[in-house]
Amino acid sequence: MIYLDYSATTKVDEEILEAFNDAARNCFANPNSLHKLGVLSKNAIDDATNQIKKDLNIKDGEIIYTSGASESNNMALKGICLKYQNMGKHIISTSLEHPSIVAVLNYLSALGFEIDIVKLNKDGTVDMNHLKSLITDDTVLVTICAVDSEMGIRQPIEEIGKLLKKYENCYFHTDMTQCLGKDKIDLKDVDLASFSGHKIYCFRGIGCLYKKEKLAIEPLIHGGRSTTIYRSGTPQTELIVALSKAIKLIMKDIDSNYERVKKLNNMLKINLKNYDNVIINSTDKSIPHILNLSILGIKPESFMHALEEFDIYISTKSACSKSGNPSISVLSVTNDKKRAESSIRISLSYKTTEEEIKEFLRFFKICYQNLSWK
Amino acid sequence: MIYLDYSATTKVDEEILEAFNDAARNCFANPNSLHKLGVLSKNAIDDATNQIKKDLNIKDGEIIYTSGASESNNMALKGICLKYQNMGKHIISTSLEHPSIVAVLNYLSALGFEIDIVKLNKDGTVDMNHLKSLITDDTVLVTICAVDSEMGIRQPIEEIGKLLKKYENCYFHTDMTQCLGKDKIDLKDVDLASFSGHKIYCFRGIGCLYKKEKLAIEPLIHGGRSTTIYRSGTPQTELIVALSKAIKLIMKDIDSNYERVKKLNNMLKINLKNYDNVIINSTDKSIPHILNLSILGIKPESFMHALEEFDIYISTKSACSKSGNPSISVLSVTNDKKRAESSIRISLSYKTTEEEIKEFLRFFKICYQNLSWK
Repeated sequence: MIYLDYSATTKVDEEILEAFNDAARNCFANPNSLHKLGVLSKNAIDDATNQIKKDLNIKDGEIIYTSGASESNNMALKGICLKYQNMGKHIISTSLEHPSIVAVLNYLSALGFEIDIVKLNKDGTVDMNHLKSLITDDTVLVTICAVDSEMGIRQPIEEIGKLLKKYENCYFHTDMTQCLGKDKIDLKDVDLASFSGHKIYCFRGIGCLYKKEKLAIEPLIHGGRSTTIYRSGTPQTELIVALSKAIKLIMKDIDSNYERVKKLNNMLKINLKNYDNVIINSTDKSIPHILNLSILGIKPESFMHALEEFDIYISTKSACSKSGNPSISVLSVTNDKKRAESSIRISLSYKTTEEEIKEFLRFFKICYQNLSWK
Repeated sequence: MIYLDYSATTKVDEEILEAFNDAARNCFANPNSLHKLGVLSKNAIDDATNQIKKDLNIKDGEIIYTSGASESNNMALKGICLKYQNMGKHIISTSLEHPSIVAVLNYLSALGFEIDIVKLNKDGTVDMNHLKSLITDDTVLVTICAVDSEMGIRQPIEEIGKLLKKYENCYFHTDMTQCLGKDKIDLKDVDLASFSGHKIYCFRGIGCLYKKEKLAIEPLIHGGRSTTIYRSGTPQTELIVALSKAIKLIMKDIDSNYERVKKLNNMLKINLKNYDNVIINSTDKSIPHILNLSILGIKPESFMHALEEFDIYISTKSACSKSGNPSISVLSVTNDKKRAESSIRISLSYKTTEEEIKEFLRFFKICYQNLSWK
C-alpha cells in the first residue's frame, strides 16, 4: 500500500497508541474526582499539558482540549464573535478555509455579521495591502488558515499577526490543522489557533484550541468542572495523553522532516511536469507535504480510482468538502475552472519513502496512459 | 483496590479497548475519503451505528456522535431552543440535573428564556401534577434526567414522554448518561436523549445524542461532511466502534445485572442502617447502582480520604460538581441542609463483587469508628 492521503488523515503511530492504552488502563479515574485515583488521572493531564506548552512555546492556561479542529474552529469563531459582538460585527477571512470555518461564517452572517474575503496574490498568499484596506473599526475577527488543506499554501501568519496587533479590538484566529508539525509557527501574535490530533498520527476525536492567556471567549460547551472554564466535559485523559505524545513526536524533528518531504515533493514535481496534461496547482508558497495538480481531460475521481487499483491512495480534494463540485481553493488561486474541476491532491508525510514515490510515479504513468487513451 | 465510584467514570473494558485498537490500526482512513480505505472506515462506522440502533431500538439517522454527554446536553438544549425560539421561550427542568444542563439553562436564561423547576415528590421523582401545571403554550422544552448522578433517582421518563406528546410544540430531552445500561428505557416518546461512553466502560471523549427522526435542531458544531448534518467533524471511527461495542456489552445482560447490583445494594443498606449517624438519602426510586448516604457529624471529604487509605474509592458527590458546597440534589430531595452537607456517594457496577462489598463494610466500620471518635 502506498498511502498519499496524509492530509485527509494519518494512521495512528504505535507509540501514541501505546500511550493511549497505558493511560486508559492506569489513569482511568475521573480527573475531577478528589480521591488519589482522580489525582493520578489529573496529574497525567497536567504532565501532558506541560509537554504541549513546551513544544508549542506557550503559557499556562492557553490550551483548551476539544474533540478536534471542527470544534476548535467553531469555539474560536463563535466564542469571539458572540462575546464581542457589541464591539464590532465585521469578520475578514479567505477563500481557502476549511468547511468548519466557512459554515460558521455563514451561521454568523445569518446572525448579522458582515464577512469580507481578502484577495489572494498569484502564489495564493493573502494580499496584505488588501487585508489592511478591509480592516475597519467594526472588525472583530480575522480568521486565516496557516496552511489550507487543498493547495497547502503557507500563509504569512506571523506577518498578519504583527499587522493585526495594531488593532486593539480585532482578534486573530488561525486554523493550524494542516500546519502543525509540518512547518514551524510562532504563536506570539496569534490570539487563537486550532489543532487536530488525527492529522499528526493521533486519533480522531481529539484536538485543541490555543487561546491567548487572559483572552475571554464565550464557551461553546457550557457545563461543570473541566481543565478550563471555556470547555466543559469530563477531561479525556487517555486522548489528551495521546495528543501530547503526538505533538511531542511531530515537533521533534520538524526541520529535518521538512527537508525530507521537500526532496520527495521535488522528485514528484520534476517527474509530473513532463506530462503534457498535468498542471501543478500548488505554488512555491505551498508546503511540500501537499502537491495539488490538475490532469486536464481526466476526471479526478477516475484517476483516484485507477490508482486505487494498484493500492495507491490519493484524494481529489479535501475529504470534508463536497465531491463533484470544482475545488473552490484551486479556483480562487488559479482562476481557472477547468483546473479546479480536474484537481487531485497528493499529500506526503515524513514517513513517506523515496521508494514509495518511485512506485507512485511508475503507476501514475500507467494510469495516465490508460485514462488518456480512453 | 475496591472501586466504588463507577458513576464518576468506569475503567475501560479490555474487549472495548481491543475493538478501539483494531479500528485505529485497520480502519484508519478518513471515512469521508472516496477511496476504498475511506469506504472501509465508513463501513466500520455504519456497522457500529447499526448495532447501536438494534441495542437502543431506534431508527436510521437517530444517532449523532458527540464528544460526550456535556456536548450532547449542550447540543440538545441549545439545538432546540435556538431553533424554535419563535415558538416559545419557556423551559421546564429539575433540581437534579448535571452541571452541563444547569449551565446551559443559565446561558439560555441570559438570552431571555424563562426556566421553571418542577417540584419533586418525597421519593425524588418529578411531581407529575406540578409538571402539568407548569406547561404553557410557550413551553418549548422539558429536560429531565432519566437518572441523576448523585441520588440515582430513576425518573418516570416514559410517563413524562407520554404526557408531553400531547403538547405539539414542546420537545422532551432526557440526560440518560447515568441510566444507559443500568435500567432499561423506552425512547418511543423521547425526542432527544444524551449518552456518554465513559460511564459504560468506554472512553472519555465519545458519546452520542439520540434525536428523533425528522426533528431538526440547530447544530452546535457547524462544518463539513460527517455522519450527520447536525454535527460536523471527521467521524471518530475508532471511538465510534468502541462506543458501539460498549453499548452492546452493557445492554446484553441488563436484567440480570440489575438484579445482581440490587442484591449488593441491599446488602449495603441493611448493614449501613445499623450505624446511628448514617442516614440513607437514596430513595426507593433510586437505581441500585447509586447509594447516597449522609454520615452526620463526619465531613464527607474526611470519610472519603479515610477509605482511600484502605484503597477504597467512593465520592462525596458528582465529580463534575463544585466540592465544598452542600449537595443540591440531596438538599432538594431531603430538604435537610445537614444531610446535604454530609453526603457521600457509593456507586456500584455489575462488575462489583459480594466480596468487595464485604470488604468495604469492614473498612467502613473502621473509618466510622476512627472519625466518630475524633
